[in-house]
Amino acid sequence: MNKTVYYFGDQLTDGNAEMRNLLGGKGANLAEMCKIGLPVPHGFTISTEVCSYYFENDRKFPETLDQEINFYIKKIEDTSKMQFGSNISPLLLSVRSGSRASMPGMMDTILNLGLNDDAVIGLAKSTGNERFAFDSYRRFIQMYSDVVLEVDNSLFEDALEDMKIQNGFVEDTQLNTKHLKNLVSEFKGIVLNETSREFPEKPYDQLWKAISAVFSSWMNNRAITYRKLNNLPSSWGTAVNIQSMVFGNMGEDCATGVAFTRNPNNGKNVFYGEYLINAQGEDVVAGIRTPNSLTKDSDEHGLIDLSLETKMPKIYKQLDECRIILEKHYGDMQDIEFTIQKGKLFLLQTRNGKRTAEAAIKIAVDMVAEKKITIQQALMRVEPESLNQLLHPTLDENANSDFLLKGMPASPGAVSGKIVLESEEAVKLSAAGEKVILLRLETSPEDIGGMHAARGILTSRGGMTSHAAVVARGMGRACITGANELKIDQNNGIVYFDNRKFKSGTEITIDGSTGNVYLGVVPTVYPEMSSNFETLMKWADKERRLKIRANAETPSDAETAIKFGAEGIGLCRTEHMFFDEDRIIVMREMILSENINDRKKALDKLLPMQRNDFEELFKIMKGLPVTIRLLDPPLHEFLPNSEKELVSFSKNTGIDIEKVRTQSLRMREANPMLGHRGCRLAISYPEICEMQARAIIEAAVKVQRNIDDELKVEIMIPLASTSAEIDFCKDIINSVATSIIKENKINFNYLVGTMIELPRAALCAEEIASSADFFSFGTNDLTQTTLGISRDDIGTFLNRYLDEGIFSHDPFVSIDKEGVGSLVKLGAAKGRKKNKNLKLGICGEHGGDPDSIDFFEQVGLDYVSASPFRIPIARLAAAHSKIRRN
Amino acid sequence: MNKTVYYFGDQLTDGNAEMRNLLGGKGANLAEMCKIGLPVPHGFTISTEVCSYYFENDRKFPETLDQEINFYIKKIEDTSKMQFGSNISPLLLSVRSGSRASMPGMMDTILNLGLNDDAVIGLAKSTGNERFAFDSYRRFIQMYSDVVLEVDNSLFEDALEDMKIQNGFVEDTQLNTKHLKNLVSEFKGIVLNETSREFPEKPYDQLWKAISAVFSSWMNNRAITYRKLNNLPSSWGTAVNIQSMVFGNMGEDCATGVAFTRNPNNGKNVFYGEYLINAQGEDVVAGIRTPNSLTKDSDEHGLIDLSLETKMPKIYKQLDECRIILEKHYGDMQDIEFTIQKGKLFLLQTRNGKRTAEAAIKIAVDMVAEKKITIQQALMRVEPESLNQLLHPTLDENANSDFLLKGMPASPGAVSGKIVLESEEAVKLSAAGEKVILLRLETSPEDIGGMHAARGILTSRGGMTSHAAVVARGMGRACITGANELKIDQNNGIVYFDNRKFKSGTEITIDGSTGNVYLGVVPTVYPEMSSNFETLMKWADKERRLKIRANAETPSDAETAIKFGAEGIGLCRTEHMFFDEDRIIVMREMILSENINDRKKALDKLLPMQRNDFEELFKIMKGLPVTIRLLDPPLHEFLPNSEKELVSFSKNTGIDIEKVRTQSLRMREANPMLGHRGCRLAISYPEICEMQARAIIEAAVKVQRNIDDELKVEIMIPLASTSAEIDFCKDIINSVATSIIKENKINFNYLVGTMIELPRAALCAEEIASSADFFSFGTNDLTQTTLGISRDDIGTFLNRYLDEGIFSHDPFVSIDKEGVGSLVKLGAAKGRKKNKNLKLGICGEHGGDPDSIDFFEQVGLDYVSASPFRIPIARLAAAHSKIRRN
Repeated sequence: MNKTVYYFGDQLTDGNAEMRNLLGGKGANLAEMCKIGLPVPHGFTISTEVCSYYFENDRKFPETLDQEINFYIKKIEDTSKMQFGSNISPLLLSVRSGSRASMPGMMDTILNLGLNDDAVIGLAKSTGNERFAFDSYRRFIQMYSDVVLEVDNSLFEDALEDMKIQNGFVEDTQLNTKHLKNLVSEFKGIVLNETSREFPEKPYDQLWKAISAVFSSWMNNRAITYRKLNNLPSSWGTAVNIQSMVFGNMGEDCATGVAFTRNPNNGKNVFYGEYLINAQGEDVVAGIRTPNSLTKDSDEHGLIDLSLETKMPKIYKQLDECRIILEKHYGDMQDIEFTIQKGKLFLLQTRNGKRTAEAAIKIAVDMVAEKKITIQQALMRVEPESLNQLLHPTLDENANSDFLLKGMPASPGAVSGKIVLESEEAVKLSAAGEKVILLRLETSPEDIGGMHAARGILTSRGGMTSHAAVVARGMGRACITGANELKIDQNNGIVYFDNRKFKSGTEITIDGSTGNVYLGVVPTVYPEMSSNFETLMKWADKERRLKIRANAETPSDAETAIKFGAEGIGLCRTEHMFFDEDRIIVMREMILSENINDRKKALDKLLPMQRNDFEELFKIMKGLPVTIRLLDPPLHEFLPNSEKELVSFSKNTGIDIEKVRTQSLRMREANPMLGHRGCRLAISYPEICEMQARAIIEAAVKVQRNIDDELKVEIMIPLASTSAEIDFCKDIINSVATSIIKENKINFNYLVGTMIELPRAALCAEEIASSADFFSFGTNDLTQTTLGISRDDIGTFLNRYLDEGIFSHDPFVSIDKEGVGSLVKLGAAKGRKKNKNLKLGICGEHGGDPDSIDFFEQVGLDYVSASPFRIPIARLAAAHSKIRRN
Repeated sequence: MNKTVYYFGDQLTDGNAEMRNLLGGKGANLAEMCKIGLPVPHGFTISTEVCSYYFENDRKFPETLDQEINFYIKKIEDTSKMQFGSNISPLLLSVRSGSRASMPGMMDTILNLGLNDDAVIGLAKSTGNERFAFDSYRRFIQMYSDVVLEVDNSLFEDALEDMKIQNGFVEDTQLNTKHLKNLVSEFKGIVLNETSREFPEKPYDQLWKAISAVFSSWMNNRAITYRKLNNLPSSWGTAVNIQSMVFGNMGEDCATGVAFTRNPNNGKNVFYGEYLINAQGEDVVAGIRTPNSLTKDSDEHGLIDLSLETKMPKIYKQLDECRIILEKHYGDMQDIEFTIQKGKLFLLQTRNGKRTAEAAIKIAVDMVAEKKITIQQALMRVEPESLNQLLHPTLDENANSDFLLKGMPASPGAVSGKIVLESEEAVKLSAAGEKVILLRLETSPEDIGGMHAARGILTSRGGMTSHAAVVARGMGRACITGANELKIDQNNGIVYFDNRKFKSGTEITIDGSTGNVYLGVVPTVYPEMSSNFETLMKWADKERRLKIRANAETPSDAETAIKFGAEGIGLCRTEHMFFDEDRIIVMREMILSENINDRKKALDKLLPMQRNDFEELFKIMKGLPVTIRLLDPPLHEFLPNSEKELVSFSKNTGIDIEKVRTQSLRMREANPMLGHRGCRLAISYPEICEMQARAIIEAAVKVQRNIDDELKVEIMIPLASTSAEIDFCKDIINSVATSIIKENKINFNYLVGTMIELPRAALCAEEIASSADFFSFGTNDLTQTTLGISRDDIGTFLNRYLDEGIFSHDPFVSIDKEGVGSLVKLGAAKGRKKNKNLKLGICGEHGGDPDSIDFFEQVGLDYVSASPFRIPIARLAAAHSKIRRN
C-alpha cells in the first residue's frame, strides 16, 4: 500500500487541489487553501485508495494506516498544544467524508470526536465555558450514536424536545449547563438501552469506529441512490478528512455559516450566504434553525440588523477577502463553509458551488467579460441538461390565481401537482403517472427519491442553502423552502397554508422563482430567453460541429423548434398527422378496404390533407432541410380500440361493426414492434407510398413557387434492412415525383434516404448506402432490436437491472455505446465507405441526450434531431463535445 | 456482343459439357454427345447471354444474332440436304429451351417448326407419308398457337376430341389423312378467330417468334415459381436449342422415349425407361398415353411383349450401348430422351437423372464399388435435404386398412390427407394448416404450386416419368401415377375409386413406395435405414468437421437423436418440461405467488420433477454433452389462456379467478419477444434459477455415481447481452453446485455458457466470452432481432417479399448470411479472440438447414444442433461443406 494519509496545515501540506481523485474534493481543497495561506484548522485526509482497499478486503484497513494516523494526530497535537482525550486541554476532531464528486449530505460526518467524561471537564476548563463543553458533548453523543452505533436518532431528538418543553424553552440555546449535563446522562442511558453497551469512552476507539462508519456510508442506500441518479461509479470511494475542531457554538462571538461567492440562484456577482451565531455547521445545512444573511443588502432575508456584515464587520471583511482570493484562485464561483470561533475566522471547506442554470449562464458569461475564463471554459461551466430548467414554464401573469403563502425561492420553475407528504408516496404516485409536489417540514437525504419523483418541493423550514434547496437545484426541480406559514399534520394527511386547511392530494402550484404558492393549477407560459442565454447559445453554435435538427410534425412544433435554434426537421412522423378526428376515419376506411380500388379512394381523400400539412411545414422551415418519414406504425394501431370507438366508427361510416372487429383481430400481431410496419407497408400497399410521395412533392412544388430559398426535402424510408426495400420505394417516389415535376415545369430536387434502425441495416450499410442519399439512425428501435428489449415492456425489469448494476443507465435515455453505439459507428463507417457524401444523422430520443450527443460527435455524424424543447440542450452538448475533443 | 450461337453436328461442334452456364444443360450436353460420336440431330444453341441481353434491352435481340442464325441454318440445310420452308424437301426444326439447371416442363418448346401449306406438301412427298405430314402440321399449329400466339389450348383439344367422337375413335392414331387435313383447317380457323390474323406462313417469321416465346417463357409464372422453390436466380436466363427435327411419329418403325441408365426410384443398376411407338416425345413426358417399358424384365410394366427390347431388339441394343457410353462418360446416372425415326436411333437429350433419395444413395454407393467415382463424389451426389424422404414414415403393416386401388409407385413416402382436386385449393387449404392430397387426371407445369402445397399427389394418367412423377420426386412428395381406376368429376367435386364414390375432402392415405391408396388415415411407422444409408452416413461422418447435436427435451426425442447419430444435445428447452398437466398447475402457482416464500414453496414442488427429467436425459446421453437452457419464455405464457382453462385452474388450486385474470392481464406484454424473458427472469427471480441449477446438478451427481463415462453437463443462460447478466446467473449456479458437489463428496465438472441470440451479445462477444465457457448462437431469435421481424408475424408480408425478390428465401429457414450471418461470424471471432478454447455452436432451426450449415462450417463453429429428424441431413450437409472446401 502507498502512503495512506495526507497532512494539511501551516507547514508541510502534502496535497493540493489537483489531487481530488485521491483525496476527494474536500480534502484536496482543504490542502489547497492551506497552501495559499487561508485559515484552515489543521488535519489530514485518509485517501480514497484506503476506501477501495476497505471494501475489497472485507472491511479491513491496510496495515500501515494505524501508524500513519498516530503520527499525524501527534503532529496536530504538537501544533495545537492540545492532547487527544486529555482532561486538561483536549484535542477534539471532526471526521468527515469527502468524495471525488460532491455528494451533499449523502454520507456521514462526526463532530467533536474525542470527548468523554474526562475530556469534557478538560474542554470546560480550557475554554472556560462549561455550558459549551456539555453542549458539545451531548451533540457528539447524539451524532456518534446515530452514525456509528446506529441508534434511532429520533430518541435523542425526543429527549431534547422533552427537555425544552419541560422548561418552556423554544430554542436549544435556552438550555443551561445543568440541562445539558442531564441531557448527556439521558443520552448515555439511551445508548446503553439500545445497544446494551456503554457509550465508548476511549478516543482512539471512537476514532477508528468513526472512520469505519464514514467509509461504510459510501455504500449506504442514499449514497447509492445519489450515485445512480448522477451516474457516478461506486468504484471511486470516499476519502475521510480528520481535522482539529473549531467551534461556532462557544458563545455570542462565535458563528458558523455557508457562503457562495456569487448568488447561486440568479448568478449576480454579490456575496451570498447565511450564518448562525453560536451554532455548529450542521445546524445551517440541515435547515433546523432559519439562518440570517451574510450581507446587509441581501434580497432574500429581511432582517438586515442580523446580517454578519452588521454584527461582525471585521470578520465579514476578512471573509469577503477570502471570497475574492478563492474565486480568483479557482476561477469559478465557490461554495464555502466557515466557522468563527471567538472572533477568529476558519474556512472548513471550499468547492465549486452548485447553481441554477440561470446562475450558471450568468456567471459563465460574466466571468468571460471579467476575463477570468475563456469562452470555451464558460461553455463547459453550464451543464447542457440544466438548461431544461430555463425552458421550464413560468406562471402566466394574466391568470387568476388563489395565493396561499410565500417561502424562499430556492430553485426556479413553476409547476403544479397534488400535495404529497411522504417521499415514498411521491415515488409511488409519480410512477403511476401523477404529478406531485412534495411537502416536508424539512428534507433530509432520505428524501432524495421522493424529491426526484416530485415536480416540486415545498418545505416549511430551512433556508436557501438547506438540503432541500441544494438538492432541488441540482436536480432542476422547482423548490420553495422556509415557508413558515405552512403547517403539516403528517399523521392525518392535512396541511395548513396559513390558516386554510387542505387534504393531501389537493392540487397546488408553486413558483420556485418567486417563492409563491397558489391553490389549484395556475396556467403557465414559456419564458423569453435571457440575453445571457442567447450569448451562450451563440458561443455554442460557433464551437459545435454537429448540426441540430428537431423532431416535429405540427406547425406549432416546427415554430418552437425554429425559436430554439433548430437547423431543420430531422424527423417528421407522418402517422401523427392521421390521428385527427376527421382523418382517422378516412385512415380506417383505407385500412379496412377490401380491394385496391377502395383503398385508393380512401387515399385520395387523405391526399389533400397530407399535402396541406406538408405545405405548412415547408413554409415555416423555408430553406432548412425537412426529413419526412413515410408511414411507419403497423396499420392496426389506427383501428378503433375500445367497444365505444368501434360502435361510433361503425355508425359514422356504415361499415359493419363485425367486419371491423374481425379485421382488428385478424390484424393483431404477436410482436407489433417486429411486425408489418415501416417500409413493409409501402411494399405491401405501394399505393400508400404513392399517395404520400404525391402529397410531399406536390406540396413542395407549390411552396417552392412562392419562396426564394431552395426547399430541402428529404424523404425517409423507415425500417429498411435491404437495399431492395429502398429501391422498391424509391422507384415509386421517383416515378410520382418525376411526373409532378414535369407537369409543373419546375426544377426541383429532393433526397431519398432511410432510417437505420435495424441491426441488419447497420451491418449491411455499405449495400444500403448504394440506394440511399442519407441515413438517419433510429436509435429507439435500434436499441429495442440490438438489446432485444421492448421499450413498452422494459419497466418489468429495468429497476432490477439498475439496482443490480447490470445496466448503468436506462438504454433508452442514454445510448448503449458498446452495443447500439457500435452499430451506429459501423453503419456510419460502412455507409461513408460506399458514399463519402452520405448525410448521416440520428433521430431517436438519444438526439437530445448530452451523453449520447457526445458519442455521436465522436462517430462523426452530421446532425442530431431532438424534440423541440431539447434543442438548446443539444446545441450546448454538441459544443461541449467538440471542445472536449479540441 | 460475343458469339451468340454455338453449333453442334458431325463436324465442328462449338460447345461441350463444361459450357452449361452459356449453353444451358441441354445445349451443352447435345454438343458433348456430338463430340463423343453419339447420334444427335444437328442444330445450334443460342446462348443464355442472349437471353440476358433480351431482358435487359426491352426484349430486343443483339444485332449480330440474325446473321449468325442464318449462317447456321444454312449449315444444317447443307448437311441434311433439306431446305427450311421448301415444298420439296423441307427442313423442320425443334425449338427448345434449356437453362443451366434442369427445370423440367417449366418453359416452352415448339416442334415441327417450318411447316406451312407449301412445306406440308413437301414433307408428304419427301417422306411418302401424307398422313404423317398433316399429323405433324396439326400438331405444329396447335403447339405454336398455344406457345407463341397464346391461343387457349383447350380450343384445339376440344376440336380434336370432337373429331374423334364424331368418328367414334378412341386414339389419335385412328384419325386418317382426311381427318387431319380437316383438323388443320379447323385449327387455322381457330387461330384466325382468336387472334384476328392468319396463321403465320413464313418459316423465318415462325422461327423468330418462337425464339422470343422461349426466351419469354423464362419469365412465365410457373418458371418463376419453380426458381423460387429451388432457389435459382432469375439472372441465369435460358438458352434456346434449335435442332433439325427427327420424327418418332412417322409410322410403326418409329418411336420416342425416355430412359434412365439406372432405376431412378430405387437406384438398381438396370436400364429403366418408357417409350411409345409412332409418337412424338412430348406424348411420353406429358403422360397423355400410357407408355411401355424399354426392357423385358421391368418391374413396373406388365406387358413384356410391348417392350422396346422385344419389339426393336437391334435398336434396343444400340440404345443400351449408348447407356453404357453415357454413364461412363458422365460418371453419373443419365436421363436420356431418344427418338427412333424409321429404324434409326437419335438421342435428343442427356442429363444427370433426377432420382429419389433412396436411389441417389444406392447409385452413389454402387458407383464407388464400381470405382466410377470417389467417396467424396458419392457424398456430393446425395442432396442432404433429400434424405428427408427416407426419414418419412411408411405404412404400419399391422394396421387395418381399407384398400381403394393401386397405381404406379412414382415417388416414395406414405402420407394421409384430404382429397383436393385443384392446385389452388391445395395451396389455400395447406396454408390454413390442412394436410391435403392432390388428385389430378394428369399434372401439368401449372400445378407446381399445388404439388408443393400437397403432402402427396395421385394421378389417373401418366407413367413413372410423367410430369407428376418427375416433379414429385424432385420435391420429395409422395406420388402415385397412372391409377387408371381413379375417375375424377372435377365439376361436382366427386371422385370414384374403382366404383366407390367419395367427396373431395375425404381423408385418404397414399403409399408412393407401393402405389397403394387407402381410405382414411392409415397409421405409419418410421423405417429402418438401409445399409447403403448407413454406409453413406459413415462416409459423411469421416469427412465432416462439424459436430452434430440435437434439440431434444424428452427421453423419446433423445433416443431418436441418438439413433440418427446425434453427438449430444445442443438445446434442451427446460420450459417444455413444464407444460405437462400436473406440472403446469404448480408452475402457475409459482408465477402467481405474491411473495418469495410462496414462490419458493411452488419451486420446491417443481424441483423433483425437473430433477427426474434431467436424470433420464443424462442416462440416455451418457458421456455425450447435454446443453440445458434455463427457463426462457415470458412467464405469462404459462398462465391459462381461455376462460375454460381459467375456471378449471381456479377450481383446482383455490386461487381466486379474478386474481388470476388480473395477473394475466397485468403480465401481458406489448412485444413478448422483447420482453421479460430469458436471463431477465433469473435476475428478477433468482430462486427460479436456483431451483433449475439444483435440479440439474443433483440429477447429474446422482447419474454420475452409476456410470463410468464422465457426464458433460452444459448449463446455458438465455437472452444475455452483457457479461453482468451471465455473472449474476453463474454466481447462483456455482454456489448451488458447489454445495451439492461438496455434500456428495464427488468430483464433478460442468460448463456455464450462454446463448448468443441478441445483436448486442454478438457485438460485445469479447466481453461476454470472459464470463462464458461456451456460446450457442440462437439464430431464431437473432434473426428476429437483427432483421426486426417477428417469426409469428412474418406471414403478413413474407410472400410479398419473396414475390418481389426482396428476400431470396425465408430467413427463418435458411440463414441470412449478410446480416445475421455477419453477426455470427463477428461473435465467433470476438469470442475466440478472448478465449481461444471457447466452444461454439448453434441451436436455431438453421442447425438443420444444409445451406446454413455450409455457412457455419465456413465460420468455424464446433457444432450445429438440429431437430432429431434432421440429424442425418445435417451430418451429410456438414460433409458436403467440408468437401467443397477441401
